[in-house]
Amino acid sequence: MRDYQLPPSKCIAMMKLLAFCLFIISLINIPIAEARIRHYKWEIKYEYRSPDCYKKLVITINGRTPGPTIFAQQNDTVIVEVKNNLLTENTAIHWHGIRQIGTPWFDGTEGVTQCPVLPGDTFVYKFVVDRPGTYLYHAHYGMQREAGLYGSIRVALPDGKSEPFAYDYDRSIILNDWYHKSTYEQAAGLSSIDFQWVGDPQSLLIHGKGRLNCSTAKSPLKADVCNNTNPECSLYSMTVVPGKTYRLRISSLTALSALSFQIEGHNMTVVEADGHYVEPFVVKNLFIYSGETYSVLVKTDQDPSRNYWATTNVVSRNSTTPPGLAIFNYYPNHPRRSPPTFPPSGPLWNDVDSRFNQSLDIKARKGHIHSPPATSDRVIVLLNTQNMVNGTRRWSVNDVSFNLPHTPYLIALKENLLHTFSQTPPPEGYDFANYNISVEQDSNGTTSDAIYRLQFNSTVDIILQNANSMVTNVSETHPWHLHGHDFWVLGYGRGKFDRINDPKKYNLVDPIMKNTVPVHPYGWTALRFKADNPGVWAFHCHIESHFFMGMRVTFEEGIERVGKLPSSIMGCGETKHFRKP
Amino acid sequence: MRDYQLPPSKCIAMMKLLAFCLFIISLINIPIAEARIRHYKWEIKYEYRSPDCYKKLVITINGRTPGPTIFAQQNDTVIVEVKNNLLTENTAIHWHGIRQIGTPWFDGTEGVTQCPVLPGDTFVYKFVVDRPGTYLYHAHYGMQREAGLYGSIRVALPDGKSEPFAYDYDRSIILNDWYHKSTYEQAAGLSSIDFQWVGDPQSLLIHGKGRLNCSTAKSPLKADVCNNTNPECSLYSMTVVPGKTYRLRISSLTALSALSFQIEGHNMTVVEADGHYVEPFVVKNLFIYSGETYSVLVKTDQDPSRNYWATTNVVSRNSTTPPGLAIFNYYPNHPRRSPPTFPPSGPLWNDVDSRFNQSLDIKARKGHIHSPPATSDRVIVLLNTQNMVNGTRRWSVNDVSFNLPHTPYLIALKENLLHTFSQTPPPEGYDFANYNISVEQDSNGTTSDAIYRLQFNSTVDIILQNANSMVTNVSETHPWHLHGHDFWVLGYGRGKFDRINDPKKYNLVDPIMKNTVPVHPYGWTALRFKADNPGVWAFHCHIESHFFMGMRVTFEEGIERVGKLPSSIMGCGETKHFRKP
Repeated sequence: MRDYQLPPSKCIAMMKLLAFCLFIISLINIPIAEARIRHYKWEIKYEYRSPDCYKKLVITINGRTPGPTIFAQQNDTVIVEVKNNLLTENTAIHWHGIRQIGTPWFDGTEGVTQCPVLPGDTFVYKFVVDRPGTYLYHAHYGMQREAGLYGSIRVALPDGKSEPFAYDYDRSIILNDWYHKSTYEQAAGLSSIDFQWVGDPQSLLIHGKGRLNCSTAKSPLKADVCNNTNPECSLYSMTVVPGKTYRLRISSLTALSALSFQIEGHNMTVVEADGHYVEPFVVKNLFIYSGETYSVLVKTDQDPSRNYWATTNVVSRNSTTPPGLAIFNYYPNHPRRSPPTFPPSGPLWNDVDSRFNQSLDIKARKGHIHSPPATSDRVIVLLNTQNMVNGTRRWSVNDVSFNLPHTPYLIALKENLLHTFSQTPPPEGYDFANYNISVEQDSNGTTSDAIYRLQFNSTVDIILQNANSMVTNVSETHPWHLHGHDFWVLGYGRGKFDRINDPKKYNLVDPIMKNTVPVHPYGWTALRFKADNPGVWAFHCHIESHFFMGMRVTFEEGIERVGKLPSSIMGCGETKHFRKP
Repeated sequence: MRDYQLPPSKCIAMMKLLAFCLFIISLINIPIAEARIRHYKWEIKYEYRSPDCYKKLVITINGRTPGPTIFAQQNDTVIVEVKNNLLTENTAIHWHGIRQIGTPWFDGTEGVTQCPVLPGDTFVYKFVVDRPGTYLYHAHYGMQREAGLYGSIRVALPDGKSEPFAYDYDRSIILNDWYHKSTYEQAAGLSSIDFQWVGDPQSLLIHGKGRLNCSTAKSPLKADVCNNTNPECSLYSMTVVPGKTYRLRISSLTALSALSFQIEGHNMTVVEADGHYVEPFVVKNLFIYSGETYSVLVKTDQDPSRNYWATTNVVSRNSTTPPGLAIFNYYPNHPRRSPPTFPPSGPLWNDVDSRFNQSLDIKARKGHIHSPPATSDRVIVLLNTQNMVNGTRRWSVNDVSFNLPHTPYLIALKENLLHTFSQTPPPEGYDFANYNISVEQDSNGTTSDAIYRLQFNSTVDIILQNANSMVTNVSETHPWHLHGHDFWVLGYGRGKFDRINDPKKYNLVDPIMKNTVPVHPYGWTALRFKADNPGVWAFHCHIESHFFMGMRVTFEEGIERVGKLPSSIMGCGETKHFRKP
């Protein structure tokens, strides 16, 4: 090797160049206080995957399910270019928890805010994430979410701002349940006269991974269909460093199941729900319903010489689905090393009280309370029932099962095409005096595509009233999700909501704001929201099959304040009759 | 019971009323010489069916697959209201063999003549059936035809006119092959980088019925998936009366297979092909390719004390698919009674000569010859090859694999949206001098959405040139189907088409007209047609997977003569940017 020296002049010139380079690099690394653009390009298509060792066709985003996490900071603009490569199937993607203020057309709700995105087309979603917190995205078309098209959105605070709680690391976990039948098969069974219920899911997935036992399944499965040696279905392992505090963002996008989640030997302190700070409370089991997100703080303060189980169990149904497992891996133990213990069993599936009580425990964090209006301008009671409509089994609200019209509401209302859906307002309640919520009632229902039109800026109360389903002594848990808003959760109760006395017990002091909330078996849940976001917004049970069977309503507010609609949302219903400009 | 007499005046009045009623009734029954409207309402959806005893999701029309036969007379107008209840999947239905003169927008070819029909939408097809004969309909979107969306169109002569051959009864049989995987699974395999060929079909269906042996399949299938006692999959039985002549309309809509069809102990006299009268010739085995229709005359002149097998076999591929069986039932034998013989074996799969010779035998019937123009204005040679394009395996023409643009050509051309697809004309031939069709060549290809624009009323010759595929010593049989036209079949040959000498051997005397024609292994087929039907027309291999993999081209002619497009075909691509009129 040759040794040599530079002449001093050259050396100084190079030093200057180096300094200039460092300056440029420093510019790139400077935290930029202003909002940024977060640009994603996604290709969605069907691919074979084995998330629980069972091989089936799933929908991937850029080859992955769950899809890539969207990372952004408050007030950033997120742009997602979605190329639909599903070949013959349309799509639409909803940004769950993002209110889409000023961009109601990018809410991604097929039939409500847009026409479906056709195969081969690229649809560009563009919206601002205006609040920090934990959110989700998923297909919002038929039962497509179940096929694997889902993921997380994590919105951080702007640089220099900090959360009202301390943690060392920030991690995400999506919980899901998993069926082996295709969504086509499930949908065909649900919509046929010869009704076939989807049944219990085959697996619970933790962050997209589960582990079906191929050999002890009811009948052994062939190796080309189910293979426990497939590395794709090794259990999810989250590596943690002992002696730290972890923020775990836990969300659920189950098709059906209400879940309990726990980490063996570790308590969890709940600090966030659906993007809002929670007055901290400690749980061993976190109950979580489809569409909900929570942040919990977990201290890695246990014996660091071993790993621990993270488990999820079905609650609220007497389910045959085995628990979902993952490994909470204390570094430097091997991430695949099984804990020396049996996985902890979950809570009793029918322990409604515990779930009810967790709901009551969730309150807004002191210093971060958004006070609700003291009174409301309108009260809409939504009775949750199962009905027979034209020979098919449906889920309904006030005995009306929802049908989508051919032209998305946002377009129909903005373009004044009111003939495209029923102008008879849907019912604001049910037969309060005579309907017995505790037993099966006359199960005949109707369908309608009518919507609730809300006065802009008015305050609306929604009472979700649960009831007995078509099965004796069964009342299910329904997680209701509202688009375009957060609502205050004013109260939960048992039995039939008392319109006179129950409102007097509303929590108007420190109610949590959420976008998804359960209504417990035979119970009621009271919500309040301001109709201050111009657009048309879905409100529905987040159970995929219930949604598919008509358990949804639609709200409109301030349509006259909605800006010019982008042409990309057009293409169906009456918009076909539009002509070249 | 009371006996009474009417007064004579009342009796006369009643007689007059009766006479008037009879007159009205006679009016209703009078054969109406003018064209009629044939109105069909179809609901298409996914349902579970077991056509070959294996239960899977299929697409039905009004609950049936094959769908209902459309019966019409020449010059009738057929209206089919198609309600798409596929939930998340689009559709489009092609009327195979109907030229759509004056209604190019109702050809049903997704991406060429219309946007896909969205779930929930009802699309109304309306067209004139201007010639008698045997035609087909089927989905023309992705690989959807394979899911079971297909059926027959039978157009009779007007009352008082008769065919140039005599028969007592008129029957239809559709032949098909059948896969157990869904079209989604097949399409995902074909379009992935990790290419997975669809493989051999599991069954051959005769008129929608087959019979898989559930217990001797490679591994026994569970009774809830495959059940040989299911009456749905009893063999198709055609009851015939001894001593009569039957016209059998035999058509093939196989996904992949070239077929041979025979009826044990009976000869068949071929009299019609694709709606044109054939100079009669007799066959024991009828070779039939996907998209073809034939009428044969069969005399029920055999021993009437027993039944006979009707069988169909895969030819042109060394296939693992078992033969398809049906019962040719001589009345009054029981229709399910098995014939006392073994089903006859079909011809050798690789006996290309016999198939080649049948092609040569098909000539126009004397007295019904449409003479072709003596010369053509343009010759387009289409070399059929397999290519690798961007890591995926494709079928191509002149090394160019076809891609659909986002805006259907008919709309793009009529509305002058020429930026929506490539304006570089596709190649009119290949490297004639250097390309060796007998061995695998450099397999890299490109894709394009460019089309052939034909001068209106010009005469165009198409030379289909077969070649070796990407597999050594394999050249497949491709049935090519032209939309919007019949073509004259001027000749078939072996090896490389000789542009100087082969045209001298063209049959210009009595060539048959067809809409679908095979190009045999390592051979060529020469076609001629008049570009006299204003519109945009697909021309493609009728093998579903080959079509899906890009083996298609598109012709345009007389776009300036196309009338105002119906808005129902809009909704995709650039038509989304159209605005409210």
